[in-house]
Amino acid sequence: MDVYSFLEAVREKKPLVHHLTNWVTIYDCAQVVKSLGASPVMAHAPEEAADMTGLASALVLNIGTLTADFIESMKLAGRAANGRHIPVVLDVCGAGATPFRDRMSLELIDAVRISVIKGNGSEIARIAGLDVRTRGVDAADVGEDLRAVASSLARERQCTVVVTGKEDIVADPETTYFVRNGNEMMTHVVGTGCMAASVIGTFVGASPQVPAAASAAGLSCYEIAAEIAVGESEGPATFKQLLLDRIYRLTRGDVDSMQKVEQ
Amino acid sequence: MDVYSFLEAVREKKPLVHHLTNWVTIYDCAQVVKSLGASPVMAHAPEEAADMTGLASALVLNIGTLTADFIESMKLAGRAANGRHIPVVLDVCGAGATPFRDRMSLELIDAVRISVIKGNGSEIARIAGLDVRTRGVDAADVGEDLRAVASSLARERQCTVVVTGKEDIVADPETTYFVRNGNEMMTHVVGTGCMAASVIGTFVGASPQVPAAASAAGLSCYEIAAEIAVGESEGPATFKQLLLDRIYRLTRGDVDSMQKVEQ
Amino acid sequence: MDVYSFLEAVREKKPLVHHLTNWVTIYDCAQVVKSLGASPVMAHAPEEAADMTGLASALVLNIGTLTADFIESMKLAGRAANGRHIPVVLDVCGAGATPFRDRMSLELIDAVRISVIKGNGSEIARIAGLDVRTRGVDAADVGEDLRAVASSLARERQCTVVVTGKEDIVADPETTYFVRNGNEMMTHVVGTGCMAASVIGTFVGASPQVPAAASAAGLSCYEIAAEIAVGESEGPATFKQLLLDRIYRLTRGDVDSMQKVEQ
Repeated sequence: MDVYSFLEAVREKKPLVHHLTNWVTIYDCAQVVKSLGASPVMAHAPEEAADMTGLASALVLNIGTLTADFIESMKLAGRAANGRHIPVVLDVCGAGATPFRDRMSLELIDAVRISVIKGNGSEIARIAGLDVRTRGVDAADVGEDLRAVASSLARERQCTVVVTGKEDIVADPETTYFVRNGNEMMTHVVGTGCMAASVIGTFVGASPQVPAAASAAGLSCYEIAAEIAVGESEGPATFKQLLLDRIYRLTRGDVDSMQKVEQ
Repeated sequence: MDVYSFLEAVREKKPLVHHLTNWVTIYDCAQVVKSLGASPVMAHAPEEAADMTGLASALVLNIGTLTADFIESMKLAGRAANGRHIPVVLDVCGAGATPFRDRMSLELIDAVRISVIKGNGSEIARIAGLDVRTRGVDAADVGEDLRAVASSLARERQCTVVVTGKEDIVADPETTYFVRNGNEMMTHVVGTGCMAASVIGTFVGASPQVPAAASAAGLSCYEIAAEIAVGESEGPATFKQLLLDRIYRLTRGDVDSMQKVEQ
Repeated sequence: MDVYSFLEAVREKKPLVHHLTNWVTIYDCAQVVKSLGASPVMAHAPEEAADMTGLASALVLNIGTLTADFIESMKLAGRAANGRHIPVVLDVCGAGATPFRDRMSLELIDAVRISVIKGNGSEIARIAGLDVRTRGVDAADVGEDLRAVASSLARERQCTVVVTGKEDIVADPETTYFVRNGNEMMTHVVGTGCMAASVIGTFVGASPQVPAAASAAGLSCYEIAAEIAVGESEGPATFKQLLLDRIYRLTRGDVDSMQKVEQ
């Protein structure tokens, strides 16, 4: 796969990526889109969520700090996206932690046609109906064959499913990609998972015909930047800053020599 | 203009700057005020928004992630500011992107006497009644004479109007200042526009008699720090950190030798 | 006191620390917990606040950007914590600034059994019933014997009281600890106070039998990291990044040689 060509598409098309996301990592979600050369926007009022989506090339929904009202705004934005064939990425952040979170996630997936469902192993296992418990928003070991879970959910929901982890799994109903970039430092930084969803939204916004390939390419670029950044950093906080810098400066040479995407 | 004397006034008076702002860049808005040597505070509950404003030297309103309820709190705070002659800065963040955003902006401007209306070119053009469309929260090319738009709006609303851009325009009904500091890297960082509004609020809070001159001086100081920071940074994220550091350390030597404010 | 042994307990037990906190510094509160080797989670919807608390080892409440609804969610979470003997840390951020803030703080303290009440000098003096006025969220000089105020409030409320400042005071009904680590740069960074509450929550979550000692040890570790970071930083923003890095890398050697905790 020519991973870099997907980044080029982002930098050329500069997609507007609308977010309804959580209040913890909202800044980083915006900045990662900006560092990629695209435009983030965040607007959750029910009076404008749909209108703002109508201007965008992709919609990213993240339930990290959900409320019932916020989910209603997500539905409005999601339906507007569906009506205009704008891809919708859903980060099921914290699914499995509380019954409310599970119920709201499934309500969203039923109400809105999602292009890419993204989570860590335990979150996706929960959305697939397995009886796993997530401890807050960090991944739990689910002891399942995540590749099979992802493919099965992708077929059931007719969408792309992304499971992030040491090996990222990107499955659509026909194909599965594996991304083996990144490093362990990412697990010590709040927001790397949320930023991954924003990266996916940005890449899918620029290449909407091939959401699975675009998601895999986006994750690879993001994680290559992380690999470069980690060597220059002093710990998790400077690492995140350098990650956001390196994404901005990523070259074809970096991506061609470092990408680890397999089908 | 003795730009540095305005920064001295900020450092001496340490104004308390109350914000009702957006959830994306709220931290940076607070930190830029703190880096200037002043005190930020953010309190939006309708039960206390007016009381908190009463303690402050300036009020900064930013509609980036507005809701109808939030606008009501802004009106309460704004009216309290008006009653006590505390200057109000309004960042019309994203005006032109949705009808709701336009309507709420104008409602605010009608309900509260604003000292400084601040936006990028397309936002200000929209507030001035021109038929431009903003794509999210990034500036669009409006193909208008922004100096004339700013002056005309300043006269109509009897306030100061700030248009940020490569050349910042600061117009009051009588005078127009131009600030030509800053650099292109600022456009790759989420929140540089919001921070500019907080900087203006801080400078106007310390020098309320001359809002246009204080706004121009504030923008110049902020952008001088950006000019120093960019050479030391690796990309947009480390740039923002160093910008916030350099603001904290700005000297008379820096400002006197680098300021580019013209009338 | 073997301060480092408390950090070891955090790193071994990796407590989940649930937060209902303010929107300004929410990211830093999460990251400081993560940098310590523990897990942060933030969930404020009334439908899940109690359930999420039930998974956690500690609950941190911070009223920085309170609303009436948010306080109701805090009560739900707080009562769930009380029912399961999960320690609750309350940061009375901005108490003394508005009547609403004072009233809500006292309502919370009456409705929920708090393990650790934490604030700066003027905030704690206000909660103790003294007639002081806080200017926003920064500490005011209260001209009181803060040691006596803290001890008295600790006895009255049968809890631990933490007063942050140049000398941190940690008082429970029987004992008082003093922590003399840290440096003046912390006062130029937005969020150092909020992060201190999250640090306390994390340490108390790992050592719930001894909340006062755990609070003192947590503050000492946090402030030792600040002492190391300040020499490497360029100003307040890079200082905060390096602080979050240094917390992650703190060793027994650092803590044993630098800790300044006295009883």
